[in-house]
Amino acid sequence: MSNSNTLMTSLFNPKSVCVIGASTKPGKLGYNILENIVKYGYPGRVYPVNPHYQNILGLKVYSSVSEIDDEIDLAVIVIPAEAVVKVAEECGVKQVKNIVVISAGFKETGKEGAEREKALKDICEKYKMKLLGPNCLGVIDTFTPLNASFAAQMPLKGNIAFISQSGALGTAILDWSFKNRIGFSKVISLGNKADLSESDFIAALAEDVNTKVILLYIEDVKDGDKFIENLRKTVRIKPVLVLKSGSSAAGQRAAASHTGSLAGSKIAYETMFKQFGALQVETISDLFNYAKVFSTQPLPKDNAVCILTNAGGPGIIATDACERYGLKLASLNSETLNNLRKQLPSNASIYNPVDILGDAQPERYYTALEALKNDDNISSIIIILTPQATTKPTETVLKLIKLVDKLDKPVTFSIMGGEQVTEAKKILSENNIPVFSFPEDAVESIAALTRYTFIREKKLSHRKFRISANKEAVREIIKKVLNEGRRTLLSSEACKILGFYGVKTPKVYLASNSDEACSAATEIGYPVTLKIASPDIIHKSDVGGVALNVKNEEDVRKIFIGMVANAHKFFPNARIYGVEVYEYVEKSREVIIGVNKDLQFGHLLMFGLGGVYVNFLRDVAFRIVPVNTQDIDEMIKETRVYTLLKGVRGEKPADIDSVIKTIIAASQLVQDFPVISELDVNPLFVYNKGEGCMAVDVKMSLYI
Amino acid sequence: MSNSNTLMTSLFNPKSVCVIGASTKPGKLGYNILENIVKYGYPGRVYPVNPHYQNILGLKVYSSVSEIDDEIDLAVIVIPAEAVVKVAEECGVKQVKNIVVISAGFKETGKEGAEREKALKDICEKYKMKLLGPNCLGVIDTFTPLNASFAAQMPLKGNIAFISQSGALGTAILDWSFKNRIGFSKVISLGNKADLSESDFIAALAEDVNTKVILLYIEDVKDGDKFIENLRKTVRIKPVLVLKSGSSAAGQRAAASHTGSLAGSKIAYETMFKQFGALQVETISDLFNYAKVFSTQPLPKDNAVCILTNAGGPGIIATDACERYGLKLASLNSETLNNLRKQLPSNASIYNPVDILGDAQPERYYTALEALKNDDNISSIIIILTPQATTKPTETVLKLIKLVDKLDKPVTFSIMGGEQVTEAKKILSENNIPVFSFPEDAVESIAALTRYTFIREKKLSHRKFRISANKEAVREIIKKVLNEGRRTLLSSEACKILGFYGVKTPKVYLASNSDEACSAATEIGYPVTLKIASPDIIHKSDVGGVALNVKNEEDVRKIFIGMVANAHKFFPNARIYGVEVYEYVEKSREVIIGVNKDLQFGHLLMFGLGGVYVNFLRDVAFRIVPVNTQDIDEMIKETRVYTLLKGVRGEKPADIDSVIKTIIAASQLVQDFPVISELDVNPLFVYNKGEGCMAVDVKMSLYI
Repeated sequence: MSNSNTLMTSLFNPKSVCVIGASTKPGKLGYNILENIVKYGYPGRVYPVNPHYQNILGLKVYSSVSEIDDEIDLAVIVIPAEAVVKVAEECGVKQVKNIVVISAGFKETGKEGAEREKALKDICEKYKMKLLGPNCLGVIDTFTPLNASFAAQMPLKGNIAFISQSGALGTAILDWSFKNRIGFSKVISLGNKADLSESDFIAALAEDVNTKVILLYIEDVKDGDKFIENLRKTVRIKPVLVLKSGSSAAGQRAAASHTGSLAGSKIAYETMFKQFGALQVETISDLFNYAKVFSTQPLPKDNAVCILTNAGGPGIIATDACERYGLKLASLNSETLNNLRKQLPSNASIYNPVDILGDAQPERYYTALEALKNDDNISSIIIILTPQATTKPTETVLKLIKLVDKLDKPVTFSIMGGEQVTEAKKILSENNIPVFSFPEDAVESIAALTRYTFIREKKLSHRKFRISANKEAVREIIKKVLNEGRRTLLSSEACKILGFYGVKTPKVYLASNSDEACSAATEIGYPVTLKIASPDIIHKSDVGGVALNVKNEEDVRKIFIGMVANAHKFFPNARIYGVEVYEYVEKSREVIIGVNKDLQFGHLLMFGLGGVYVNFLRDVAFRIVPVNTQDIDEMIKETRVYTLLKGVRGEKPADIDSVIKTIIAASQLVQDFPVISELDVNPLFVYNKGEGCMAVDVKMSLYI
Repeated sequence: MSNSNTLMTSLFNPKSVCVIGASTKPGKLGYNILENIVKYGYPGRVYPVNPHYQNILGLKVYSSVSEIDDEIDLAVIVIPAEAVVKVAEECGVKQVKNIVVISAGFKETGKEGAEREKALKDICEKYKMKLLGPNCLGVIDTFTPLNASFAAQMPLKGNIAFISQSGALGTAILDWSFKNRIGFSKVISLGNKADLSESDFIAALAEDVNTKVILLYIEDVKDGDKFIENLRKTVRIKPVLVLKSGSSAAGQRAAASHTGSLAGSKIAYETMFKQFGALQVETISDLFNYAKVFSTQPLPKDNAVCILTNAGGPGIIATDACERYGLKLASLNSETLNNLRKQLPSNASIYNPVDILGDAQPERYYTALEALKNDDNISSIIIILTPQATTKPTETVLKLIKLVDKLDKPVTFSIMGGEQVTEAKKILSENNIPVFSFPEDAVESIAALTRYTFIREKKLSHRKFRISANKEAVREIIKKVLNEGRRTLLSSEACKILGFYGVKTPKVYLASNSDEACSAATEIGYPVTLKIASPDIIHKSDVGGVALNVKNEEDVRKIFIGMVANAHKFFPNARIYGVEVYEYVEKSREVIIGVNKDLQFGHLLMFGLGGVYVNFLRDVAFRIVPVNTQDIDEMIKETRVYTLLKGVRGEKPADIDSVIKTIIAASQLVQDFPVISELDVNPLFVYNKGEGCMAVDVKMSLYI
């Protein structure tokens, strides 16, 4: 990650900055940016560049970057799009390390803009300059401090880094953050991501001592592999919260027309975030609610929550929310219960939720929290305060903040109300204790923090697998298919390929005439199944292209002739290779194993309930390839069909190990042969434990 | 609803109020309540009652209620719990119409309190007094105006009625409402609901001209039937939004310890709310976010939304949210598109989301909204404004409010940001235009409003059904079972009962010895299925109590003897009636029809995917009995198995009509015989269209 280190210093903490397109006119971006740099105390050397002016804000103005007699770490370019490429070249010649292109008028505007962006990118590559943008808001580092953006203000200093693909969202959030006392370490506006992207920044921020939590708003990911690689490393060190928009079908269209980005498959994104440890959030408010907690609180040990409240109703609401978000109520240990019993009024509820009653004064809150503080059964604490007749909100939080500070458990407050509690809420915020208006938000944030505990604890041990496979034979089949100009394999070919990876499939022969079909059937043994062999007929059973349980030679012959004639008649343009003769296979539990190639993240593996109902029951789980055995294990357990495989209602358990082996085979196959864009094993019959499984129907397609 | 009318006048707008337990000491509830009544301008006659004082707040104090020489519409009682019953009796003698018991110390405190509450309730019944509470905050009507509560302030006047089972939640929400400019028509604190409950108030509020939307926070429903009856009438007139807490397992325990209420089955509650038109919300913040929109906006015609934005990112976020909450993006009509094309800059996006770009000034917002206003394809509009370099938030909303006011479509704003947009948000709120910080909330609220449009439009036509059934014969079977001291019916009995309601079941005979079993098998015809006949052995197939496909007399005899011996051995205490001999039935698609009695809402009907996988696939839908054919139709369509019944992958469609008839039969059976607490038809084999269905396995239990 030496690149990250370079980024951290020369972009966020440059020794010198020039603003190309600096202006004397307040209100113009070229003025605002320069003013922000100067006004917010950037300690390095600043060089405005503009051929039309001599002096701006007391600084000497240069007519071009080449005239500056200094090394330039960062050039901010804010001139009309048409002129950007030429100026970038000047920067390159000058050996500028980073350029931030604020100017719009690139890919987002259409073909001409896209060409301009390509030229800009080429220049940066040629001179090894890093490029942020174009079409962005700029970059802010509150610690340097450097505000190389046209944001209206300098954000508060804090430990949250915010990376946003939407400039407008960035400005709105900054404005909003003052009111909500949220502080940032860095704010990065990605713009069109011609060069630097989210992947570069999460890697850089992983090493940033001033950043405790990384927030990401993106509409797409630029480079799937790089993102995955950097994400998995970063989440071992600090949490990455992601709001990914453009996931709905309509949202994808909107995103495409907005930045020309390809939003990619929703399932692939969700799978990727989950598998590699990003915390995906659903709404902007969740993003910042969580950030409040992540940036200030220690990680919980487990998912056991204690609720401390002065009102029953909100306590119940919080309890419901715990269940909804996957938390459980802690069982308080006996010492805690004794302490609570001794010190609370007799009609208080000492069991979780701990209800210290509507007349609770600051002392009672304190006593209760003291009692809870060292209980190892409690992973995190949610304190609810509602203003009742004799409640003293301000005094209560003043009494509690010192104690909360010393806790090794995360704490969030829920304080409902308006004027009566404004001061109390302000005090908590100022003391870095998260406070929410409603208990559900307090619970949801703790749930997110707890998810991160589990992400951090997840073993990284890749129990790597490597199964022996006859790759040469597979290569031959694929070559043959491609040579014939096909993309879809025949079932017999697909079965053979899986066979080379150790997966059991029915015996199958391709017969191009009825004699061949009969001898194949004799070879296999009756009864047999016949299927029309054509790469162009997909849903064979829907068009009379499948005959099950064919019992003798006479029937094989009759069916062969009828099936081929029928296929020619209804699909005059289809390539008909004859009929495939299959071994009869005993029916069993049906699961599906599928692989589909996603444009962004490569092969997406699917496992779930199989059979004809797969589409309407949708009991499936996904992972990005490559997977390790732990991934496979978790994937299987995510589905409901897992219960079935374990054996329900007195059934014997199924051979889950053989399912795992089949998934391993599928995963390795598509890694070895990335040309395989689609693999569909449905059904895979899974027999009782020890008896293996059988890939009964296999479809495979190639993508060149 | 004459009772409701009485409530509306004598409780909310009484001619005279006495406060029993009035106090001279500020800070005491008896003082606060009296002060609230006087201070907030109650126009009727006020009588403080307390034997220890002469004068409070300039009012003459009476030593007891009987001394007051006036008719009393409302008595507010705020004295120690021990004295309440006696005072209530005095009120009864005095013919007081309503009492509100503020005092705590009743059911919520345990056995003694529960007895006290019972006595209080009896007194009220005896004297036909209405009772609110005990253990409540009181009641507020902002129009009367009357503040007979110890809330710290008088809420703002508005058209939202808020009914809360939690007093603390009530006070917190009131305090919060000022800051958020939310106004109320009435605030009702239910307390322990010894007499008046949510059901009474939703009926009363249905007729209240000052109330446009009813908000309900409850932990349980007191009387299921009454609630359903009043709810279904009320939602035809105005929306009822419900936050029901205590739904999680832990939440139920917390609720029980809090108010001693039985929270009831989560599924039954959810089903009931949905079926009878309440809008159930998940969080407190949703409750009030929705209320903002419901109280100010017209209903949308349909679910087509138009998004108007000055920023791409938030537009995409809103688009995603539309899909998430069941809304669609409107396709703008050609006239609208032409207008937008003509009047917006060329790089604006005129398709929905309409993106009028970051430099949009008030004029451009106005022009765009003008163009959208009359487009019939648009049901509702979401306007997004993010503060960018040249945005004028205040001027923009000032320009828009008049136009928004004239629209016949609902509008919500999403304005992100802090100081820069504070004024704009305030102006919108003051003009009764809902504004949210984040686009997702704006979308979610419109989605809730749209759901209410569909609730209102839902036909009330109860296509009643009445099938002929041999009820006498059913009664005989049930009598016999009860006489034998059983609660579980034998399969043969259950099948017979369904048969009397026109449901096809396999032929089945109970055989008490092997000879009887053989003649039954001959009568039915081979092959047959044998099942152990015992009311005490439930999962027969798990314990060797089922033999399928028995082909001849010899096997019947052998199996009979083995099965009975086996049952005696493993279940020495079970009643063994012999073996049931079943007709062999051809397998087909499997669905389940179930009925379970819920303590609160009566029989809960279930339909879904059947077979042994029902528990792990959980593809089921629920309705409260009685159902009409429309309910049944909707219930079936909610499940995924519906797709299967329609015919997937070339299969023939199933006989859905016969499924509907079976559900009707089940529904009518449990109405005719409410003693049936459980009915489980699993599987019901459903054959191809026109070929009917067959209840293959039937379980039935009674509850006395």
